[in-house]
Amino acid sequence: MERWSGLTADEMLLLETTFWSSGGSRHRMAERLAFSKSKTNALIAGLVDQGILAEAGLQQSSGGRRAENLQLSGTLGVLVGIDIGATSLDIAVLRPDLQPVAQHAEAADVRQGPGVVLARVRVILRELLARCGVNARQVLGIGIGVPGPVNFQSGQLVNPPLMPAWDGFSIRDLLREDYAAPVFVDNDVNLMALGELWRLKRSLSNFLVIKVGTGIGCGIVCHGEVYRGAAGSAGDVGHICVDQEGPRCHCGNVGCVEVMAAGPAITRMAVQAANDGQSEALAECLRRTGRIDATDVGHAGRAGDAAANGIIQKAGSLLGQMLASVVNFFNPSHIFIGGGITHIGPLFLAAVRQSVYQRSLALSTRHLEIQYTPLGAQAGITGAGVLAMQETLKVRGVAP
Amino acid sequence: MERWSGLTADEMLLLETTFWSSGGSRHRMAERLAFSKSKTNALIAGLVDQGILAEAGLQQSSGGRRAENLQLSGTLGVLVGIDIGATSLDIAVLRPDLQPVAQHAEAADVRQGPGVVLARVRVILRELLARCGVNARQVLGIGIGVPGPVNFQSGQLVNPPLMPAWDGFSIRDLLREDYAAPVFVDNDVNLMALGELWRLKRSLSNFLVIKVGTGIGCGIVCHGEVYRGAAGSAGDVGHICVDQEGPRCHCGNVGCVEVMAAGPAITRMAVQAANDGQSEALAECLRRTGRIDATDVGHAGRAGDAAANGIIQKAGSLLGQMLASVVNFFNPSHIFIGGGITHIGPLFLAAVRQSVYQRSLALSTRHLEIQYTPLGAQAGITGAGVLAMQETLKVRGVAP
Repeated sequence: MERWSGLTADEMLLLETTFWSSGGSRHRMAERLAFSKSKTNALIAGLVDQGILAEAGLQQSSGGRRAENLQLSGTLGVLVGIDIGATSLDIAVLRPDLQPVAQHAEAADVRQGPGVVLARVRVILRELLARCGVNARQVLGIGIGVPGPVNFQSGQLVNPPLMPAWDGFSIRDLLREDYAAPVFVDNDVNLMALGELWRLKRSLSNFLVIKVGTGIGCGIVCHGEVYRGAAGSAGDVGHICVDQEGPRCHCGNVGCVEVMAAGPAITRMAVQAANDGQSEALAECLRRTGRIDATDVGHAGRAGDAAANGIIQKAGSLLGQMLASVVNFFNPSHIFIGGGITHIGPLFLAAVRQSVYQRSLALSTRHLEIQYTPLGAQAGITGAGVLAMQETLKVRGVAP
Repeated sequence: MERWSGLTADEMLLLETTFWSSGGSRHRMAERLAFSKSKTNALIAGLVDQGILAEAGLQQSSGGRRAENLQLSGTLGVLVGIDIGATSLDIAVLRPDLQPVAQHAEAADVRQGPGVVLARVRVILRELLARCGVNARQVLGIGIGVPGPVNFQSGQLVNPPLMPAWDGFSIRDLLREDYAAPVFVDNDVNLMALGELWRLKRSLSNFLVIKVGTGIGCGIVCHGEVYRGAAGSAGDVGHICVDQEGPRCHCGNVGCVEVMAAGPAITRMAVQAANDGQSEALAECLRRTGRIDATDVGHAGRAGDAAANGIIQKAGSLLGQMLASVVNFFNPSHIFIGGGITHIGPLFLAAVRQSVYQRSLALSTRHLEIQYTPLGAQAGITGAGVLAMQETLKVRGVAP
């Protein structure tokens, strides 16, 4: 950490560019920074000498001599990514280039409140760091994603519907007791969007990441940056109305896409199909395990169960209806769908696509790609790591 | 024009900042540019000597000596703003600080195609320039707004639903025959958003401008810049569905907000109320003038006509329903409503607000302002002027 406290603005820019281009060559780096070749080489040499940058093997080249891949040195320290979901907890210790060193995932219930959940976070994190032989002072930065609206500046949750006990709570302050490293908190879907932006090395400027789990949320990338809105609540698409005659949502309105197409709605439809005798496969699952989730519905559907496929079709079509409005408004180039829903399989995606292509304007959908998020279950953790590194570089960059 | 071909990057930056801060003091200019006071003064003195900047009278100051207002010199030349609406044509000759020198507005029908409409544009523009004693070579830049999707790079219209005869037509090439100045074309609502951004001196970063006229469109400002989307069709909100059982729209889908709440829908509801004997005021208007538009419905409503007020309420509520989805997604700080609908009066705005506040999340609406666009009928022309100046500065800035 102390190692980069005396770096120049140009050196910090080179570090940031290296982080975002993960494994680029010197040549590509010079191009991106609009520095001369000799200036870039001198800067790199200095940073390699200080143990901040490392040259990682040889890169395949189209001809001539091979260029070295550059990355942030593993000796700098580690990043911590924490992904708090409504029903899950994921924690990873990552190298500065975001390669995981140690990782742990378990079921959790965010409604138990910050006391219970964060006590568990502290225990797991201590164990993970011990497992990699890293001490608390080697942690460079900590990034945390939570399933609710966050005031990004203060790190506090603001009226989170899925986690009311956390309202106004500062996660940042609590973790500061254990670690000197800076702690950054953001909404989980914003972090998924940040993770994809990093995976794509910023090659796309305007895209969306939709998370479908217990709720439905949307991370927005606009002009190449994550967009949080005027009050930090941008992307709250779960409460867009898709049926004026639909059921009542916990937000007070009726027909919100979240209450009709997210995880709990899929479970509700599946339990009903099981109990009504419409699906032997779902009834069997309910008897055997006492519950049915999106993964079970997907299994039943792929085995040819018509009721399960009807549920998948309906949920996908409703999500697509909401996305059609969003596509008309925002005209993204890509929509990546993530969260627990991805286990339901390809039929869901087909239903979403059909619904969007039918309801959106031709010009907006001509080149629109809709797919499951390539980072999969790692999207949240990756985004938390990107947040930790990016904001730590900013904090360090402005320090004297 | 030639006068600024040899300017430095710093001088171009100062010009651009002066344009966007319209009448700022030297002190504020130095702050914004992060230049030293002495550097800023030297740059300004040079540009004043060359007749590029002018000091415009004295600014009220809180104490001590008064600071001079800076603006682009009127002797530089003029800008041309052209606002082609579905049923109207507005052309203005503007000073470099966007003060109108001469302006003309008339009814027009964009469906007559580019040949007819642009021949008329050329005649009016020639007359306006002659009236101000300005010749074609003194035109610095030309900005044009059109009611359809535009490929901003090529200046061509792409599948415009309200003006099919213009598909693929390049307005830019045609006007190049008369003027050496660069010609820039954009969607009309994007230009309204650009105009408001200029009026606000960039003090808001994330807001929307909604135009309700023959169609419904939306200009988006995101991260302080106009956002056009991946394919240039962002803001196409007219075809967001607000009623799955609603009437069929010209786009092929049903229940689009445009077919239910824009100008023609208001006229259709008003004619029906007149013919069904529900409104004496509207029937009288129809007898007298042979037609009813939003302005007439507004008049009848303010005179206490219940049917007219019902129509206003219904249209406002449907627009608000669409905006509620957009607000949940985008979380803007302000929504400015413009276009012909503004003549309908305050009840419409009240209905829009009620519908948005009811359907959007509390966090997104807590500080949300919804109002008619302060630039009013000048929004389109102002935006066209801003486009002309901004892009001309960019083009000139990169020239050797």
